Amino acid sequence: MRIMRRFEIKPLNGELREKIQDKIDNLTKPKGSLGRLEELAMQVCMIQHTLTPKLRKPHNVLFAADHGIIEEGVSVSPKEVTWQQLGHFARGGAGINFLCDQHGFELVLVDSGVDYDFPSGTKIINKKVRRGTHNFLNEAAMTRHELAQCIESGAEIVSEVYERGCNVISFGEMGSGNTSASSMWMSFLANIPLEQCIGAGAGLDTDGVKHKYQVLKRALDNYSGDGSVEDFLAWYGGFEMAMALGGMLQAAELGMVVLVDGFIMTNCMLAASKLNPIVLDYAVFGHQGDESGHKLVLRALGAKPILNLGMRLGEGSGAVCSYPILESAVRMINEMDSFQKVSVTKYF
Amino acid sequence: MRIMRRFEIKPLNGELREKIQDKIDNLTKPKGSLGRLEELAMQVCMIQHTLTPKLRKPHNVLFAADHGIIEEGVSVSPKEVTWQQLGHFARGGAGINFLCDQHGFELVLVDSGVDYDFPSGTKIINKKVRRGTHNFLNEAAMTRHELAQCIESGAEIVSEVYERGCNVISFGEMGSGNTSASSMWMSFLANIPLEQCIGAGAGLDTDGVKHKYQVLKRALDNYSGDGSVEDFLAWYGGFEMAMALGGMLQAAELGMVVLVDGFIMTNCMLAASKLNPIVLDYAVFGHQGDESGHKLVLRALGAKPILNLGMRLGEGSGAVCSYPILESAVRMINEMDSFQKVSVTKYF
Repeated sequence: MRIMRRFEIKPLNGELREKIQDKIDNLTKPKGSLGRLEELAMQVCMIQHTLTPKLRKPHNVLFAADHGIIEEGVSVSPKEVTWQQLGHFARGGAGINFLCDQHGFELVLVDSGVDYDFPSGTKIINKKVRRGTHNFLNEAAMTRHELAQCIESGAEIVSEVYERGCNVISFGEMGSGNTSASSMWMSFLANIPLEQCIGAGAGLDTDGVKHKYQVLKRALDNYSGDGSVEDFLAWYGGFEMAMALGGMLQAAELGMVVLVDGFIMTNCMLAASKLNPIVLDYAVFGHQGDESGHKLVLRALGAKPILNLGMRLGEGSGAVCSYPILESAVRMINEMDSFQKVSVTKYF
Repeated sequence: MRIMRRFEIKPLNGELREKIQDKIDNLTKPKGSLGRLEELAMQVCMIQHTLTPKLRKPHNVLFAADHGIIEEGVSVSPKEVTWQQLGHFARGGAGINFLCDQHGFELVLVDSGVDYDFPSGTKIINKKVRRGTHNFLNEAAMTRHELAQCIESGAEIVSEVYERGCNVISFGEMGSGNTSASSMWMSFLANIPLEQCIGAGAGLDTDGVKHKYQVLKRALDNYSGDGSVEDFLAWYGGFEMAMALGGMLQAAELGMVVLVDGFIMTNCMLAASKLNPIVLDYAVFGHQGDESGHKLVLRALGAKPILNLGMRLGEGSGAVCSYPILESAVRMINEMDSFQKVSVTKYF
């Protein structure tokens, strides 16, 4: 069996904390009055181990793959939407494209296992494992070997992006059926009853959500693996999800800031944290999405997302949307004057 | 007595609503999946009466003034901080400066009534009414004539900004003591018990907030005006607040998008809405601030702020911070492809 890569993530060094806080408290504003910006500045300073942090060359890495479970009618979005949308991202004009353009993100597109052969010459990176996972109603979605392969592929892509000078990265996904896979991960990893982990996905009605629950409940009952985290991830996971979690771990190992998107990516971060909990120190949660269950998994992680805009698009959209707030935090600590520097009475 | 200017604000024309909604629903995403971006796009399209809205030359107009009530010890921030900070904004290096730089806002600084004479040659526009309002514990803060003058001055400044091609504007303030004035407006205009309208301002402790309440309660008991909205605004208001409300009304009359900042500016919008309720159709609430009471006045207005980042800086900071989200909304409706245009199965 392929051995799963271990990631060595540095715990944040506490030494600088006091100096960073002093710097923040001496900026010309009432103490604490920039709220989340101050907390985010602290986190980025700690990650970069500096009082003058920089955000360089942000990238959004979007992994796409198909899911065998979609055969059971768990998604309103048909399977072909996965490849159609991935092609669309490559040509431009989709949701994630305008957001990346707006905030200066490079968009990296990865075929992790889409049920379609893209012509060569597109900007889609081919890391296809297979043309979609197996239907996990009756068998494991992927082998443990494939899980390890995905984690490695995700890590490779992040290493390449890092080599280009990037130090802040978000991850997105496209995959009809992947809220189902995510709900399975969430229920097991966060120990939350399956029913509370299931939502409308791309737009199921009440009956659709009920059916989705019945299918996923049966899939859970049919599980016959060894009960380990790795086995569970492989049994229910998607190729795109496994690559994202590998990417997250690699990004943290490289000391990058990891912007976390919505429901699916939050569950990937949850999964990553089960393999190495220190990854969470590098995570900035961008957005609380509208998918039922997202709030619960965020709570389980103790995460406080930057935005809450009722979005549920995926693709990395929520993470990229939150980027200007992170940038504000960094500008704050670099560009604001201290009380010492200017003639303003310090009144606290 | 100076006659108070009336503003003719066009109600939004409902005709286009269906066409805008159709366009939004046909963008390549699950219906409704961009949440607040879709609502904001609708509002901007309605304000600009178009399916292809544009945000042009954003400006943040910051009014500063002093408040007589500060003599009663209602603020942790001493009076001189008002002029020191206004000077600081003019030189750069304060909170609002980095946010304006980040988001391409022009910063317009107005001395509405600061207790300091700025040298000529600064970029501060002189609209000084007096060197601070009277102490409203015992008398009206300003005359009705001065209120009308402020509203006119605020409107004039907005008209000039509009002439430069701006169609989206936010307002900010600086004025030690102005949360006290705002609490008085809020309690009367939103009919909320005074106690619930009072918070820590720039950083009062529990005893400080208690003292602030006692002072403001006495100030309320001492009121001897005619009970009209105009009289109440003049009795307790600040020059900067009255100018902001005039600016908001003028901006709406000119068909501009009005980005509303935190506690103080929300109360100015509340006041503006009492003079002409249609102004609210043009208002985009940027931020729910950390000042106790802000949540309540937002609720009274039926407002749903874009951000909630625990900020309480003023200066327009929360409004400017929220601008990229508004920009995302406009990009969404202009830049995303429709299902008709690209080969993606429409699945709802």
